Amino acid sequence: MPSSRGASRRPSVDDPLRHPLRHHGDVEVGDLLDLAVNVYAGPRPPWLDAALRASLSEVGAYPSSDRARAAVATLHGRPTDEVVVTAGAAEAFTLVARLRPWRKAVVVHPQFTEPHAALKQAGHQVCEVVLASPFTLDPAAVPDDADLVVVGNPTNPTGVLHPAAAIRALLRPGRTVVVDEAFMDCVPGEPESLVRDRHDGLVVLRSLTKHWSIPGIRAGYLTGDPATVAALAAGQVPWSVSTTAAAAVEACCTPEAAEESRRRAEEIADWRKQLEAGLDELGVRFLESTASFVLARVGNGVHARLRERGVAVRRADTFPGLDGSWVRIAVRPPETTERFLEELRALG
Amino acid sequence: MPSSRGASRRPSVDDPLRHPLRHHGDVEVGDLLDLAVNVYAGPRPPWLDAALRASLSEVGAYPSSDRARAAVATLHGRPTDEVVVTAGAAEAFTLVARLRPWRKAVVVHPQFTEPHAALKQAGHQVCEVVLASPFTLDPAAVPDDADLVVVGNPTNPTGVLHPAAAIRALLRPGRTVVVDEAFMDCVPGEPESLVRDRHDGLVVLRSLTKHWSIPGIRAGYLTGDPATVAALAAGQVPWSVSTTAAAAVEACCTPEAAEESRRRAEEIADWRKQLEAGLDELGVRFLESTASFVLARVGNGVHARLRERGVAVRRADTFPGLDGSWVRIAVRPPETTERFLEELRALG
Repeated sequence: MPSSRGASRRPSVDDPLRHPLRHHGDVEVGDLLDLAVNVYAGPRPPWLDAALRASLSEVGAYPSSDRARAAVATLHGRPTDEVVVTAGAAEAFTLVARLRPWRKAVVVHPQFTEPHAALKQAGHQVCEVVLASPFTLDPAAVPDDADLVVVGNPTNPTGVLHPAAAIRALLRPGRTVVVDEAFMDCVPGEPESLVRDRHDGLVVLRSLTKHWSIPGIRAGYLTGDPATVAALAAGQVPWSVSTTAAAAVEACCTPEAAEESRRRAEEIADWRKQLEAGLDELGVRFLESTASFVLARVGNGVHARLRERGVAVRRADTFPGLDGSWVRIAVRPPETTERFLEELRALG
Repeated sequence: MPSSRGASRRPSVDDPLRHPLRHHGDVEVGDLLDLAVNVYAGPRPPWLDAALRASLSEVGAYPSSDRARAAVATLHGRPTDEVVVTAGAAEAFTLVARLRPWRKAVVVHPQFTEPHAALKQAGHQVCEVVLASPFTLDPAAVPDDADLVVVGNPTNPTGVLHPAAAIRALLRPGRTVVVDEAFMDCVPGEPESLVRDRHDGLVVLRSLTKHWSIPGIRAGYLTGDPATVAALAAGQVPWSVSTTAAAAVEACCTPEAAEESRRRAEEIADWRKQLEAGLDELGVRFLESTASFVLARVGNGVHARLRERGVAVRRADTFPGLDGSWVRIAVRPPETTERFLEELRALG
């Protein structure tokens, strides 16, 4: 049932074979060359390593994220009561899912499937709004009676950066709009970020996992209006943010971190250009990306054939709105990208 | 409404001033001499420190608790599908609270208040069964229609170790019995532990927080029948157990850890004897404890007067069934205990 604007709305298809919503790239890697996991591939900054190590001297006390919360608030120019530090974005998705008995929870696909899975885990039905290629957000595709809308920006796995104005157009009284900005640090200057926007019902999620290469730490945060933030925080498991995670958040809010964040964003952009140029040369269709991955239409069967050649890319058929002809390719340093392109070329 | 057996049953009294269920000892310490927090006061074992540090080299990958789960299963002689690794006992309390729409959830008090708070957070009414001094478990005090019963063993803050048989007597078809064994490692040989018991509906929680002095890591686990374990695990936030927490659990399951655990238990028993002898000498009434704290009836006002003298003990009036005449005193090395006893003596 495609709408007039190229998006379709459908109730959640509960077909775990077709859309295993909790399939993630990390299980695809094994001993293969990893272009499946969207984690920055450079070395850990010394100041972050030092913060993680120093935190181990503090774990004899119960954890507190007060300092981390204050650091995030300062970084984004918001009061502390508009910030919650979370155990990665995954905890935030669960907090959102359990916040209210949502009447109509909309997830805009294709996107990271965890918010959808968290809503189902919390017992909600999910209304999928599936954007058509090239997967740009059309606010009119979202049903008027949605009281929750979840959208990724830039979106995993498409790499599309929606204009802030398109997301703001989703806001209305009585609706919560959740923007997953887990990859926003990939965008130099973050022009479309809403993390500083103060609107009732707007919640922005950030994660330290990808840009700082620390999925094992479980560190993230969210910003929002004080009432929503207080209600989300009230749903947290006590001490869910470990001492080490809180230390990581604090460390990644300094001016030094901001400088390194921007350097990484620019480096990722350079690496991505190489990948995109290589795909172009091979005649592979792909979406122009703003993030640390590229969604490419390599054709059915290529995912498996790459695996046979020792290369893991992320299957995309687990994302509602995509099929087995697409794969998501992580942006990597030149030598890894070169090897990947060679293997892809060899498939003919 | 005391029952004939010295226990009273009452609906949860929602008086946050009288029973702030989320008051914990850590906020009482500040710059004071700490006899408030029940964390073992000795140095971190080198093998645990090494495991924590080594884990920081692994946090570039998504966390997995598979190895930790297998280690716990081996330690307690259970199949892996009877074990879930958790982000401390706090996550386990939340998983239990959200497991089912409990018809009658009973918390046996006085005990650690987090399970009660987690049940309320999940929207449940809580039926308090309040044991009378000396706070030993009477299975008959638990209403027959309870479908959830939560009991601590040994119990925080009373230090009472209930016989395994008394807890087993709570088991019946259709009922889940949750035993919080967060302090069981304090009991040499753990004779009353149910962590190896295989009964439908029996869930045992363990924590690494106290005995291994790592509250900041958030590490624990639970054991139970496969169906309950699977249902509890299905409620976890994805990747809620960090790489470092999983490494800690694995490290604390080795034979070397078992040896150190027993040594600590014996040391705690020695330290406790000194504390109890000192209280005896001062004519202070206390409960004989099996754990790393002693519940003492020092009299009203003594908690505040000790604070004025630079000593923090844990107020006990936040525990249903106790009042301001009781305090919980952490078991500490001899010099700390001596200083505490001097300050208590000085109060006259």
